Amino acid sequence: MEYFKGITKIKYEGSDSKNPFAFKYYNPEEKVLGKKMKDHLKFSMAYWHTLVADGKDPFGNATMERPWDEITTDPMEQAKVRVKVAFEFMEKMGLEYFCFHDRDIAPEGKTIEQSNKNLDEIVDIIESEMKRTGIKLLWGTANLFSNKRFVNGASTSPNADIFAFAATQVKKAMEITKRLDGSGFTFWGGREGYETLLNTDMKLEQDNFARFLHMAVDYAKEIGFEGQFYIEPKPKEPTKHQYDFDSATVISFLRKYDLINDFKLNIETNHATLAGHTMNHEIRLAVDNGVLGSVDANQGDLLLGWDTDQFPTNIHDTALTMYEIIRGGGFNTGGLNFDAKVRRSSFSVEDLFYGHIAGMDAYAVGLKVAARLWEDRVIEDNLAKRYSSYKKGIGKDIVEEKVGFKELEKYILNKKVLDLNESGRQELLESIINQYIIG
Amino acid sequence: MEYFKGITKIKYEGSDSKNPFAFKYYNPEEKVLGKKMKDHLKFSMAYWHTLVADGKDPFGNATMERPWDEITTDPMEQAKVRVKVAFEFMEKMGLEYFCFHDRDIAPEGKTIEQSNKNLDEIVDIIESEMKRTGIKLLWGTANLFSNKRFVNGASTSPNADIFAFAATQVKKAMEITKRLDGSGFTFWGGREGYETLLNTDMKLEQDNFARFLHMAVDYAKEIGFEGQFYIEPKPKEPTKHQYDFDSATVISFLRKYDLINDFKLNIETNHATLAGHTMNHEIRLAVDNGVLGSVDANQGDLLLGWDTDQFPTNIHDTALTMYEIIRGGGFNTGGLNFDAKVRRSSFSVEDLFYGHIAGMDAYAVGLKVAARLWEDRVIEDNLAKRYSSYKKGIGKDIVEEKVGFKELEKYILNKKVLDLNESGRQELLESIINQYIIG
Amino acid sequence: MEYFKGITKIKYEGSDSKNPFAFKYYNPEEKVLGKKMKDHLKFSMAYWHTLVADGKDPFGNATMERPWDEITTDPMEQAKVRVKVAFEFMEKMGLEYFCFHDRDIAPEGKTIEQSNKNLDEIVDIIESEMKRTGIKLLWGTANLFSNKRFVNGASTSPNADIFAFAATQVKKAMEITKRLDGSGFTFWGGREGYETLLNTDMKLEQDNFARFLHMAVDYAKEIGFEGQFYIEPKPKEPTKHQYDFDSATVISFLRKYDLINDFKLNIETNHATLAGHTMNHEIRLAVDNGVLGSVDANQGDLLLGWDTDQFPTNIHDTALTMYEIIRGGGFNTGGLNFDAKVRRSSFSVEDLFYGHIAGMDAYAVGLKVAARLWEDRVIEDNLAKRYSSYKKGIGKDIVEEKVGFKELEKYILNKKVLDLNESGRQELLESIINQYIIG
Amino acid sequence: MEYFKGITKIKYEGSDSKNPFAFKYYNPEEKVLGKKMKDHLKFSMAYWHTLVADGKDPFGNATMERPWDEITTDPMEQAKVRVKVAFEFMEKMGLEYFCFHDRDIAPEGKTIEQSNKNLDEIVDIIESEMKRTGIKLLWGTANLFSNKRFVNGASTSPNADIFAFAATQVKKAMEITKRLDGSGFTFWGGREGYETLLNTDMKLEQDNFARFLHMAVDYAKEIGFEGQFYIEPKPKEPTKHQYDFDSATVISFLRKYDLINDFKLNIETNHATLAGHTMNHEIRLAVDNGVLGSVDANQGDLLLGWDTDQFPTNIHDTALTMYEIIRGGGFNTGGLNFDAKVRRSSFSVEDLFYGHIAGMDAYAVGLKVAARLWEDRVIEDNLAKRYSSYKKGIGKDIVEEKVGFKELEKYILNKKVLDLNESGRQELLESIINQYIIG
Repeated sequence: MEYFKGITKIKYEGSDSKNPFAFKYYNPEEKVLGKKMKDHLKFSMAYWHTLVADGKDPFGNATMERPWDEITTDPMEQAKVRVKVAFEFMEKMGLEYFCFHDRDIAPEGKTIEQSNKNLDEIVDIIESEMKRTGIKLLWGTANLFSNKRFVNGASTSPNADIFAFAATQVKKAMEITKRLDGSGFTFWGGREGYETLLNTDMKLEQDNFARFLHMAVDYAKEIGFEGQFYIEPKPKEPTKHQYDFDSATVISFLRKYDLINDFKLNIETNHATLAGHTMNHEIRLAVDNGVLGSVDANQGDLLLGWDTDQFPTNIHDTALTMYEIIRGGGFNTGGLNFDAKVRRSSFSVEDLFYGHIAGMDAYAVGLKVAARLWEDRVIEDNLAKRYSSYKKGIGKDIVEEKVGFKELEKYILNKKVLDLNESGRQELLESIINQYIIG
Repeated sequence: MEYFKGITKIKYEGSDSKNPFAFKYYNPEEKVLGKKMKDHLKFSMAYWHTLVADGKDPFGNATMERPWDEITTDPMEQAKVRVKVAFEFMEKMGLEYFCFHDRDIAPEGKTIEQSNKNLDEIVDIIESEMKRTGIKLLWGTANLFSNKRFVNGASTSPNADIFAFAATQVKKAMEITKRLDGSGFTFWGGREGYETLLNTDMKLEQDNFARFLHMAVDYAKEIGFEGQFYIEPKPKEPTKHQYDFDSATVISFLRKYDLINDFKLNIETNHATLAGHTMNHEIRLAVDNGVLGSVDANQGDLLLGWDTDQFPTNIHDTALTMYEIIRGGGFNTGGLNFDAKVRRSSFSVEDLFYGHIAGMDAYAVGLKVAARLWEDRVIEDNLAKRYSSYKKGIGKDIVEEKVGFKELEKYILNKKVLDLNESGRQELLESIINQYIIG
Repeated sequence: MEYFKGITKIKYEGSDSKNPFAFKYYNPEEKVLGKKMKDHLKFSMAYWHTLVADGKDPFGNATMERPWDEITTDPMEQAKVRVKVAFEFMEKMGLEYFCFHDRDIAPEGKTIEQSNKNLDEIVDIIESEMKRTGIKLLWGTANLFSNKRFVNGASTSPNADIFAFAATQVKKAMEITKRLDGSGFTFWGGREGYETLLNTDMKLEQDNFARFLHMAVDYAKEIGFEGQFYIEPKPKEPTKHQYDFDSATVISFLRKYDLINDFKLNIETNHATLAGHTMNHEIRLAVDNGVLGSVDANQGDLLLGWDTDQFPTNIHDTALTMYEIIRGGGFNTGGLNFDAKVRRSSFSVEDLFYGHIAGMDAYAVGLKVAARLWEDRVIEDNLAKRYSSYKKGIGKDIVEEKVGFKELEKYILNKKVLDLNESGRQELLESIINQYIIG
Repeated sequence: MEYFKGITKIKYEGSDSKNPFAFKYYNPEEKVLGKKMKDHLKFSMAYWHTLVADGKDPFGNATMERPWDEITTDPMEQAKVRVKVAFEFMEKMGLEYFCFHDRDIAPEGKTIEQSNKNLDEIVDIIESEMKRTGIKLLWGTANLFSNKRFVNGASTSPNADIFAFAATQVKKAMEITKRLDGSGFTFWGGREGYETLLNTDMKLEQDNFARFLHMAVDYAKEIGFEGQFYIEPKPKEPTKHQYDFDSATVISFLRKYDLINDFKLNIETNHATLAGHTMNHEIRLAVDNGVLGSVDANQGDLLLGWDTDQFPTNIHDTALTMYEIIRGGGFNTGGLNFDAKVRRSSFSVEDLFYGHIAGMDAYAVGLKVAARLWEDRVIEDNLAKRYSSYKKGIGKDIVEEKVGFKELEKYILNKKVLDLNESGRQELLESIINQYIIG
């Protein structure tokens, strides 16, 4: 059965196209820096936003028109239909990867056994669709935040039974991710934090969180799951304060608990800005610390204080994001997962296509701009020049740790006339970036 | 004497130019929508940022390298040099307008008489430079915020003497603005607000502010000053709360105090975002209320909580800003004043050029994008279609105010099946804007 | 049937009480400034948070334990039970007022006729409970934001049918409010705004909003509803930008559309802070403009960017809020409505009591602090002194509008030595407030 | 010579006192938890705000009335007077500690030698005043942010000469801190960050920052300086992004570069909130990681986006701050340093006293509230109960790391009925805190 009737596979038609169902910039097979665009970008569909989200918000009910959800009211049957819808959508969009939470793909049962059985049944279908289409699983994850049992946290719950339950759920989610040959497994701790310190033993909670992650690492070894583990930083929302606040906080946590070699980061644009950072800062920090894993590609509204998860259309930002990714060597296990939802008022089926086209085109533009910046060494040559004083003389001695305060004092007292500071040229650099964007 | 040796008039060289001292997009004589780019944009230099700002910030001293300030230490002589520098700069940049505060152009004397004498002396020179170059005064203003006498406000001071002093100062500033044929006069109330309500009679202060503005209107009539008065909204900084918070607040104030026909708004991008609004929202609101006056063209950093006054380089924002201006009929008395400062670390003389080039190019791109959006009626046709239900039937009756609740109830009870809502298509519209930006 | 078994009427036990089911500060019959505390504060229960809210948030499902909702699954039967629960709760809490949306009290039917019938049936029960208990309706309102038909706005919808539907719904909500002798009727425009200006005709939408309100005024006259109309400002959330941004914006709107005599403001603490204002600022502004109506008493978390609607426990803020209310002459039609919800993790029935006790005690403290500040004229005497220069001489001339710029210049030139500025003494005033709070 | 004529030593007069020059709550010798209040709180004067700050802000000139600065215009003579003023002020205020930057106490000379000579000369006087009064140095620091040479950073400058200069300056500052027996030395990296990543080699800069700190540790050992090193987190301002963003970021940095045993944190209230955290969160995190050092006691305005450095008067916050400090074992080398400035409009000499009294009283209240909370075990007993499931059974096994995912799954599958979650009781806890504050 075809669910998106009248919509054929989205093709690249070039920047002059007026066809809303065509790519204007994303040309999957086009080579950039010697690699196909699609292999640079590794776009992934987020199962939750595309198949599950219904447009509810804290002040209103569902708005999304999803005719396939009208076919049946049986949750398992609905889940099966959604798999078909998902793969037809990905095929038509040219999305070669997807990501899911356990509870996105199959309804929770009354018992864990039932929930797991539901999962197995759906995973069978997903597996066959993957085989049929060649579409791959970028990463899997467990939803440890929606059910009321996680109201006070999952691995950081004050209730040990909930910790155990969460472990059980992650165990299964890892198993199905392995079965589907997922290249990663993500932890986003939406409830791993607190509402008020007045009732929170933060140290015990963080210790337990680390214990939980160590168990995951151990279990991965046991079952031979070789995908990459990711932690996804987010500062707040839903909880008032989340332990995985931002990249720096997560890196600190991973180092403290000796997990730095087992986890990388899944960095989300909108989470970066909610934490007060640019996305390129967060990626740079991850690259500098060897933990860039994957990217949740969306964008927020910087005038709003919550996670809007919009499709990324800001080409300035996609260019800088892609620049940092290229500079960091590109994706290994990770990719660009559209953790993005169409606006509540973009409720038609067509909008699912428009949203993804918008995002894929914006990242395609970003990639091409970034590639040219990289090839022309616009930024790198300037950096080499700007920091050249550390390649010779006293600067080299500093970097090689041959000098201390006394030697530096002696150097300065002898020198009298310091090397001049040079202008940072921010405005000029911003102009040049614009030239690369507009062409 | 030439102050910017080795820098010749900045020319348009097109988008491929690598020359940092050239425009890539701003081609002043090029026609857009039947009018020269320069007449659409009416770029203006802010005297304060370009001639006076020295790079001080709350944590550090001056950084700017301004060789002309080393020529003399006498403030009046320095002021005279700066006039020459200013006009040479504007000529070389192709800036046809400027804006100033009284205290930017001439040092304050020990008495008002001396301050006014200083002003007159400098205004003579400015006048002759204006004649020589054809450069015009976009607007003048009085600095009622730097001197410690304004610590508790100027027209909103609890001290009536300070009110009187401010009046005296504005009187003179209006006189010189008239003499220089300024097309506007601006009020920015940097100290017209409060630090704490605990010590503030807000009503008296706002009443006095209105009285002050009425006096200005009266005096303008008396001396025959026909320039446009502007109020410039800003929510906070330096004071904790400023009375001219945002456009809506100022419009409310103008209506309440019967000043709505005498004042328009001078809207600044960075002030808009500090108040939680987009720049295009602020302009739209002003246009809808008939009070769009002029624009302070800069940009802020939305991850920072203070006024950064950066040169505008975000082409997405300049496009949307120019779109609203074109939609509003373009500038009449106003223009695009670069209330923008080079970064503290962009301290060289060259950066003054790079900053202005960056801003002028970004607005030139914005203008061209906006003009094409306007010509193609991309947005307007969509709006006409989206709101078409108000052109006929019950919608027309609503707009023509022919119906009330009872008639509408009757209509609905008879109708049963409502007209459907239509998707807002935000993602698609954002994609299309990107196509217009990148081309 | 008793729903809160084991919980008896909450009594005042004084500040030493360790009983979580007792007031420590709120002593309803105690006289403050010659009036009973309960008549100053006029506490109201919000039907939506207390009876309807289930703990859902954008990332998780319901958490609230509400045994009475388990009694039946029939929506109308459930609605009837809730009325009983509501009145038992209010009686036990000593809450003498309540507020509701139409859709809080009765389920929406398949047709308007059915919805209205449902309402009538429930209103019968409410009416009899009101008679039985003496509890009064502070204000009613219509929910014009939850149903998907309002996805693009209600009175600001691009779809005229939706405008008509909203009118029909408000008509009925006004009728039942009148029937229940409500002292007010509130408009909160949760969807009256936009997601993006790209698809929005803001002027038409605002004109239509004004038309809608005029119809409400007309209809009130027609049916003899004499309650006060309120508009409730909120800057954003759920929409990206809401037209009723803050008090200043709403006042501007009311003046522009000649509604200023028919509407007052219902000001919410958390909405004030989301707009960048303190609550006391918003109330002061309303008082200064003669439009203080009622208060939604809650508090936000200033480190979070969304509406948290917490029970008010910040006694510094309740003191300053009550001070402004007392200064403004106290409530007339309005009161303190707890638009506050227990935290998602405060899911037990007891927490409903703890939350309301927390809020009522905090406001009782605030009232007593404010009353003493007012009686001792701590703030008012300081203001009188601080602004005394406007009571005589040139200041008096300014206020009486006898002088203009020329007279003021003459005054200043003659005076030479200005009256000195005086310290604002903010730190001292803050200390004194603390003394009043702690006692 | 007496500089504060007419002001005698500030005494404790109790909560009913109307004397603005008296403590209402701070009673230095009073015992709390078996220790004198003054030894719990260890109040310190910030030399920069009290002796140097003049009321300048980005939009205005100096406002502070400081008669002692009028005595002479010679910077060294002025510096000497200020020492006397400082110690008279501290004596009268009962402040037993102070903190300073090198450039606060003595003017910078034309050469380093001259600057150091100036320092030595002033340090002689400080030393004798310390001996005379018994006042102690809480910590010293070097100002590596005001001079234009640090425009691009100090230890993170792209210019190796600047790194060397900064080292030379810190070397001297450490020497004088040692000489004055300072119990700590602080690094606040106001320019250690970036304006734009476009021109920044973040990794080299952070590596260099770490090298710099290692040199400081080495030099301390060499000269036998045994004071505690501190890093002071701040997210932004003056730079767009500062490397010492918040406590988590600094802890991460210290761990990465093997500095975790040599540094503790100096945590500032206003910096905490600018980073999106509560102050008690930041302290809790430091305590949990064993790096709580000292506190910069001030407060910000959460509706403003910059560092306002106000005197702390929020007693709710001082209570929670002191609670975390007590819970962490109290101060060892650190104390409460008033990194707070009187408002620009609190410009009189008296305001210096009012500001400090306000802050000291607010922290005294906070201490007493916190001590009672601690003694009554209000929070701790609740925590013990809330997390009790980790003391036995499966919870104990988790904490003791005896179980993995498989064992937990087995446990859950056997158990079926999970232990229930318990309400977090946030509203009740907040009420109780209020009871402790108001008494």
